Amino acid sequence: MTEKLLTPDELEAALRAIGAERYHNRHPFHRMLHGGKLDRGQIQAWALNRYYYQSQIPIKDASLIARMPSAELRRAWRSRLVDHDGDGVAPGGIERWLKLAEGVGLDRAYVESSEGILPTTRFAVDAYVNFVRERSVLEAVASSLTEMFSPGIIAERVEGMLRGYPFITMDTLAYFKPRLSQAPRDADFALAYVKTEARTREQQETVLAALRFKCGVLWAQLDGLYLAYVEPRLVPPGAFVPVQQGIGR
Amino acid sequence: MTEKLLTPDELEAALRAIGAERYHNRHPFHRMLHGGKLDRGQIQAWALNRYYYQSQIPIKDASLIARMPSAELRRAWRSRLVDHDGDGVAPGGIERWLKLAEGVGLDRAYVESSEGILPTTRFAVDAYVNFVRERSVLEAVASSLTEMFSPGIIAERVEGMLRGYPFITMDTLAYFKPRLSQAPRDADFALAYVKTEARTREQQETVLAALRFKCGVLWAQLDGLYLAYVEPRLVPPGAFVPVQQGIGR
Repeated sequence: MTEKLLTPDELEAALRAIGAERYHNRHPFHRMLHGGKLDRGQIQAWALNRYYYQSQIPIKDASLIARMPSAELRRAWRSRLVDHDGDGVAPGGIERWLKLAEGVGLDRAYVESSEGILPTTRFAVDAYVNFVRERSVLEAVASSLTEMFSPGIIAERVEGMLRGYPFITMDTLAYFKPRLSQAPRDADFALAYVKTEARTREQQETVLAALRFKCGVLWAQLDGLYLAYVEPRLVPPGAFVPVQQGIGR
Repeated sequence: MTEKLLTPDELEAALRAIGAERYHNRHPFHRMLHGGKLDRGQIQAWALNRYYYQSQIPIKDASLIARMPSAELRRAWRSRLVDHDGDGVAPGGIERWLKLAEGVGLDRAYVESSEGILPTTRFAVDAYVNFVRERSVLEAVASSLTEMFSPGIIAERVEGMLRGYPFITMDTLAYFKPRLSQAPRDADFALAYVKTEARTREQQETVLAALRFKCGVLWAQLDGLYLAYVEPRLVPPGAFVPVQQGIGR
């Protein structure tokens, strides 16, 4: 790299530009989901597949904590484990997502088994877990920065889904409410970290590449859903097949 | 597992049944490719993405050799490295695939960079490499068994592509000719290995699951190509965009 170091604000602007181009709010599947254009079976497929992503988040976070050098950093990142796995009293994000899946008519044990998910989902999510496990702490932190863009999509999603689908209630969408405060808190921390810790242009480029990679992880999951359940409805052998007008698997 | 041990022939029959259901010759993208239904840009996308798969094969094979306990086994598996990486005189599979990519109008350096591949391709291929690296030697060997089904698809492909596309010559397809003898040799070895080494029903189930997994790896790659380049032509941000009637990028 011969280019000069970006200022922290330039780095942030470059990160935001990646989000504007690549964040999955721009994917047609999300536009359909939020616009009330999906049927119940398609929403089930989304909830089922997305559960696998949710279920792996604490695993990737724990593998990152395991490599963080200071108690302060580990403690800050630990709040993510609490958010997702719960504290034994208040339900965590994984439990709330299961409620969402049940709320749209899926069987809890089937969802937890991950049996019916698309191979594309599994590969994309596992790629994320492996990325966090194998890359530098800086890159791993940077890969979480899609959360900078999530409050917008969540607000749009909750509003759109409540309006668009009579069978979806605020209760079913309880997953999202805490995320509106958790995600910005986490994103602020991670953004401040990469702005401070990326000390060379080369490191800054790895930060940008990590965010691009993560946008690909989210985007590919919607690609899989779109192909299998919207158009041309090419469900891979062994994956979930929605029951017409039915409940569950 | 309480079910009884399968005989070696029953295990083989169960493996063949998985191929009949899940091997990627059944994917619509392949039916179009072999039926002369794709345009040059779509074939370029296929060649570009598939190159990444080719490029990772010796890496997964070397990681498997590194865990094999006997010289005999390592030596047998080493022939795969020779086939893909070449011997410095005769070109290996990777080099022959680059020739194929150039033959359909792609720039060699662009293909080698893997810059324009679909995230779906990268995640699926990396999932395969990680599977081989992390699972038992038995499962890793079993995951190679899609080669049992490849001579059929190769014959169909070469014949169909020569007939269907005036710009494709036998020379461009030189990749495939050695595969017609290499793949059955490799598949016979791997099949004999799993038939002997899977000594419990549980191990046999891991063998079957490994082949299902690998079929998913191949299938997901075609899913990605179909979505991005056939229908609904949803190219993810940053991925290869064919030039209309043009050459390369």
